[in-house]
Amino acid sequence: MAKYEQLAQELKTLIAQGVWQAGDKLPSLRQTVADSGLSLMTVLNAYQLLESQGVITAQAKSGYLVAPQPETFRYPDRQRQIYLSDKVDINEFVFSVLQASKQAGIVPFGSGFPDPSLFPQQALARSLVKVTRHMSPSFAADNLPPGNAGLRKAISQRYAKLGMSISPDEIIITSGAMEALNLSLATLTQAGDWVVIESPTFYGAMQAIERLKLKAIAVATDPQLGIDLEALAEVLKTYPVKACWLMSQHQNPLGCSLSDTKKQALYQLLNEHKVSLIEDDVYQELYVDSSAPRPVKAFDTEGRVLHCGSFSKSLIAGYRVGWVAAGLHAPQLQRLQVMSTLSTSAPMQLAIADFIQSAQYERHLKQLRKKLADRKLAMYQLLRAHLPESVGVNFAQGGYFLWLALPAHMDATQIYSQGIERGISIAPGNLFSNQVEFRHFMRLNASYECSPEIVSAVVVLAELIRNYSR
Amino acid sequence: MAKYEQLAQELKTLIAQGVWQAGDKLPSLRQTVADSGLSLMTVLNAYQLLESQGVITAQAKSGYLVAPQPETFRYPDRQRQIYLSDKVDINEFVFSVLQASKQAGIVPFGSGFPDPSLFPQQALARSLVKVTRHMSPSFAADNLPPGNAGLRKAISQRYAKLGMSISPDEIIITSGAMEALNLSLATLTQAGDWVVIESPTFYGAMQAIERLKLKAIAVATDPQLGIDLEALAEVLKTYPVKACWLMSQHQNPLGCSLSDTKKQALYQLLNEHKVSLIEDDVYQELYVDSSAPRPVKAFDTEGRVLHCGSFSKSLIAGYRVGWVAAGLHAPQLQRLQVMSTLSTSAPMQLAIADFIQSAQYERHLKQLRKKLADRKLAMYQLLRAHLPESVGVNFAQGGYFLWLALPAHMDATQIYSQGIERGISIAPGNLFSNQVEFRHFMRLNASYECSPEIVSAVVVLAELIRNYSR
Repeated sequence: MAKYEQLAQELKTLIAQGVWQAGDKLPSLRQTVADSGLSLMTVLNAYQLLESQGVITAQAKSGYLVAPQPETFRYPDRQRQIYLSDKVDINEFVFSVLQASKQAGIVPFGSGFPDPSLFPQQALARSLVKVTRHMSPSFAADNLPPGNAGLRKAISQRYAKLGMSISPDEIIITSGAMEALNLSLATLTQAGDWVVIESPTFYGAMQAIERLKLKAIAVATDPQLGIDLEALAEVLKTYPVKACWLMSQHQNPLGCSLSDTKKQALYQLLNEHKVSLIEDDVYQELYVDSSAPRPVKAFDTEGRVLHCGSFSKSLIAGYRVGWVAAGLHAPQLQRLQVMSTLSTSAPMQLAIADFIQSAQYERHLKQLRKKLADRKLAMYQLLRAHLPESVGVNFAQGGYFLWLALPAHMDATQIYSQGIERGISIAPGNLFSNQVEFRHFMRLNASYECSPEIVSAVVVLAELIRNYSR
Repeated sequence: MAKYEQLAQELKTLIAQGVWQAGDKLPSLRQTVADSGLSLMTVLNAYQLLESQGVITAQAKSGYLVAPQPETFRYPDRQRQIYLSDKVDINEFVFSVLQASKQAGIVPFGSGFPDPSLFPQQALARSLVKVTRHMSPSFAADNLPPGNAGLRKAISQRYAKLGMSISPDEIIITSGAMEALNLSLATLTQAGDWVVIESPTFYGAMQAIERLKLKAIAVATDPQLGIDLEALAEVLKTYPVKACWLMSQHQNPLGCSLSDTKKQALYQLLNEHKVSLIEDDVYQELYVDSSAPRPVKAFDTEGRVLHCGSFSKSLIAGYRVGWVAAGLHAPQLQRLQVMSTLSTSAPMQLAIADFIQSAQYERHLKQLRKKLADRKLAMYQLLRAHLPESVGVNFAQGGYFLWLALPAHMDATQIYSQGIERGISIAPGNLFSNQVEFRHFMRLNASYECSPEIVSAVVVLAELIRNYSR
């Protein structure tokens, strides 16, 4: 074991013993060099190792803090929670939650989007102004499917930064990731086909399945480890599955990410059964700063993964620009797009192409990742300070969601309704499943700064949970 | 009979006798006042009556010209051309025609869009710049379905100008009319349902029907009189039809418009059978200047018409903003949109709302209508001058399409392939039906100025037709 690994191990033990607790500041690098007699490089390596393991997190100006440790979540059925449903029916509920979240002045803990003040709205407006001034008269035709050539090339270059070789030819620009995901599913399936989703899952997957009259099998996903591959293997053996739709990174609503090993195993498993994967990766850029993870698509040797991305969570919401790297399904998917929305708005494609090819994009992403990590940790600490101990808070690296487990007898829908009356939205667990198993869970958006207003909202939330009436 | 009606009748007789022929200039108002001894008002009324009847057209700076008269079209089955098809399969052909039309430098007679130089691209860019500078941080959420409130209000006000009372609440902003039409069809039907379309029809209708696994009945549509209501009545009696999708104005590909009486009769017929109408009205604004027609939606007393509009043909292509006034189906359609593309790009909605609320919009539309009318007439004359007499050219008021009937033994697909090789695209009749009945027809885009390049292209087209080999 190298010296830096030894140091990391020692620090880990001290943290496990409670010498430093979640949110506590570790001794500075300089201090540790002085205390240990090790070189600065060794100490830095040790800290970075711990950071990559999610044990500590780097905070701007305050050095390294101890990261929240995974809390134990007792799910109703841990082993291999599979359920079947001929009819998924989630729409009315999703719609009413979305509508409620639109109310002006509501504290948006239920929102799926990051705090819009984190987006470089003005800089993007400048890109938009610039490109609209130089649009050729044929701009509409030039940007028909598969979409703007410059934007597809820029996306391809970003894949290259991850060591992935994705040709611009397999990239199709869409009206946000929602269209990318829907087109992917429509490309792979016919009415009546079986599709694997996660449990819990992004409600958009259930809605798409309902709309296309497909049948869904949900495979249990652990809030720290991600999808249960054994359960998935069993499902693939049992059912004639046509597609699998999941998130391998910063899963919505849990926040968890698969390890590289697990991503590769997942790909191999699906490939053995010749099942294509719809990889919803809209939070891809929101990793913790030091390590850029690679999606399952990175292990795709057969063109079987349809990797769906978006700029709505990492750059700007409301422009509605996403994409899919559709592998061997690209030609068919492109035809389907021509039939459904024809194309994505051309000025929006051009503006985003302009922005992401500038140095501003990387600078923005760095800042965004840092801020989201800081705010999520602060929100975690705030929740822990105010919520009863009986409430579990799942903290995963990256993204901006926290997943809360209330005591099992509680129904988060009730908290949701009471919250709306008090001016606070949350996303109740029922949104993420068509069964009641996540009734006592909720997803909170942790992308907002801990302002007095946010603190008050957390206090109210804690009060609602304490006063919960059966 | 009033004096002006008498004068109109006399002029009509002279035109029928060939004293003045299509494209000839009529005597000026002043000249006719001098010749007839009638008042200027009487003469003006007579000319305007003839204009409203499509007998003459007003031309900028050149007074009134005789309009082309309807040519006789012999369709393979004139009476009530109904066919059934369990499987509509048009996609590959449509896609290859669309892709071919994207080639740089091609003469775009096959294009579905008007000459982009007719669009106020720079003025819209200024609107876009203005709105992006003033977007609130919450602009993404504010413009979620049903869409920007200001834009929906502005659209509602335009309906009011036609004497139609359409609440902003039933208007949903979409990513172009294509999304509006697709969502409408998905709202009204389940897989296996029967849908009525026209014959010939916009290929997008057939694609949507195929995608949703519906069954289609096509009802004959006359190039001058529009859909055959007797045939439609019979179909409605015979089949459990769930929806009817048609164009009541400037039909694509024919160009024909229904009279008000026929629009009302159509509505009543559908209403008797409780069948909802998807009214594709994307060329609504492209009428001949003196008369703003009202869609079938104007006769809708039950909220049964889903009126689909777009800015892509009248204002700017490539922004991808359309709408549907969905009547009683609005709530369900809105839910469906949230599930499929989430929403239309917010800056695009805001820019168009800004522009159409300014005086520029009406000014632009007036110019556009005039230019399109002039260019279509010029194109008609050009075609008549070069094409063999055996080719029929259907001239309908409004829009920018001409519908050509080649001799019955010809296949326009062959002309299309040869045309592409010579740098000219056309839209062959097979695009607009899944039967071969329109094999010897073609649609030409007449929105381009008769430049030397366009003249040469017409000469080549005439040559291809003359040299047609069986």
